[in-house]
Amino acid sequence: MKLKVYADRMSQPSRAVIIFCKVNGIDYEEIKVLISKGQHLTSEFAEINPMKRLPAIVDGGFKLFESHAILIYLACVFPGVADHWYPADVAKRSRIHSVLDWHHSNLRRGADTYVSNATIAHVAGRPLTPQAAAETETLLLSSLSKLESFWLKDDGCFLLGGNQPSIADLSLVCEIMELEVLDEKDRARLLGPHKKVLQWIESTRNATNPHFDEVHQVLMKVKERLQYQRLKAAKSEGGSDMKKPLLSRM
Amino acid sequence: MKLKVYADRMSQPSRAVIIFCKVNGIDYEEIKVLISKGQHLTSEFAEINPMKRLPAIVDGGFKLFESHAILIYLACVFPGVADHWYPADVAKRSRIHSVLDWHHSNLRRGADTYVSNATIAHVAGRPLTPQAAAETETLLLSSLSKLESFWLKDDGCFLLGGNQPSIADLSLVCEIMELEVLDEKDRARLLGPHKKVLQWIESTRNATNPHFDEVHQVLMKVKERLQYQRLKAAKSEGGSDMKKPLLSRM
Repeated sequence: MKLKVYADRMSQPSRAVIIFCKVNGIDYEEIKVLISKGQHLTSEFAEINPMKRLPAIVDGGFKLFESHAILIYLACVFPGVADHWYPADVAKRSRIHSVLDWHHSNLRRGADTYVSNATIAHVAGRPLTPQAAAETETLLLSSLSKLESFWLKDDGCFLLGGNQPSIADLSLVCEIMELEVLDEKDRARLLGPHKKVLQWIESTRNATNPHFDEVHQVLMKVKERLQYQRLKAAKSEGGSDMKKPLLSRM
Repeated sequence: MKLKVYADRMSQPSRAVIIFCKVNGIDYEEIKVLISKGQHLTSEFAEINPMKRLPAIVDGGFKLFESHAILIYLACVFPGVADHWYPADVAKRSRIHSVLDWHHSNLRRGADTYVSNATIAHVAGRPLTPQAAAETETLLLSSLSKLESFWLKDDGCFLLGGNQPSIADLSLVCEIMELEVLDEKDRARLLGPHKKVLQWIESTRNATNPHFDEVHQVLMKVKERLQYQRLKAAKSEGGSDMKKPLLSRM
């Protein structure tokens, strides 16, 4: 039975899992669960993942959720996944675990909450909370700084000095790609000073293309829409159209 | 060269790593880094862990931080660690990864922030922020509920239906032990309805004693002090002594 991947390409960990499958030639079926339509909250999806979060997989009778756990599982189970994604060497593997654990409480929390508060809340029709965005900005900037000065400090294009990407590169870069939907000036202000981070995003994109770009198309479409809305709002003094949920207009 | 474990027994992930070493007969040296004295913020400790967080280990020339990554490393590298702690079977192992990942954004975030805001801030002489505590209470209660209804739903005393503990049991129970420092009524209100969780804490304690109790002695001492302070404050109308940092009085 073919691997089933329950995903929404608007979810960054979903994108990481889909890209991983595509890059590694894993035969899978993508089952779209649209968060914007509340499909992850249904009792039907709770049978797949009782936590009602994305992504989740079903491989034969085996169900699994949490994207890092999924990436590790896929790397271990499917033949043909190159060693650099999740090295067999215990020291290298442990350092990848360390990055992935760090990700949860730092980059994930910073980026996800910042973007959610600064932009996505608007897309979903929820009120923006700039105060919450300001609070998480500190965590986001600190995380980007740690990536620049520590995780990417060694030679090599990838985390921990690697010359080829690991599941940590894919997971963290997909997280940072969320910043694409921010106002361009805001994104440049946050990412601009982090030259190694910018180079690393590009390296990961190149190493996983054309799949990386294809899977990010949905996000890029939202980015374009938001840019258009911002432009329109700037032209009209009241910017009343901004008050309508974007997804209801797509 | 002996394994070095940099830890503060007031830190719940530090306790998990120390208990794991003791239970599994791993020969290690515990190097105390006291958070209350800011020892984790020194440039000396930054050489061990640039993130300035505990625990961290040095095994020969290999440095590692993040407690889940450390527990996995120790389980893989040291001979004599029984399979149940981190099973070789890929499906069982993946489900443990799933629990550990879930822990980061749920139980860890809920328990740590709740306790920190409700009590530990007082110990450290920082003002309490009951509003923040109320906000995180929702996440903590939701996490306890998920433990009760999902992670502990199967037969067996431990997570995922296990009859023996895994590193996930140890990590999560050490997290929940933080609730010991809460006001007794508050702790009973939060944990009381979760009978399976209470039984699971006891099972994990029994499976790892006498080390579990010994490593938690520092926490129990703080619990006693806080109880004494609460009693004293309740007796005196003003409760002015509560304003002094507890650690400065220990």
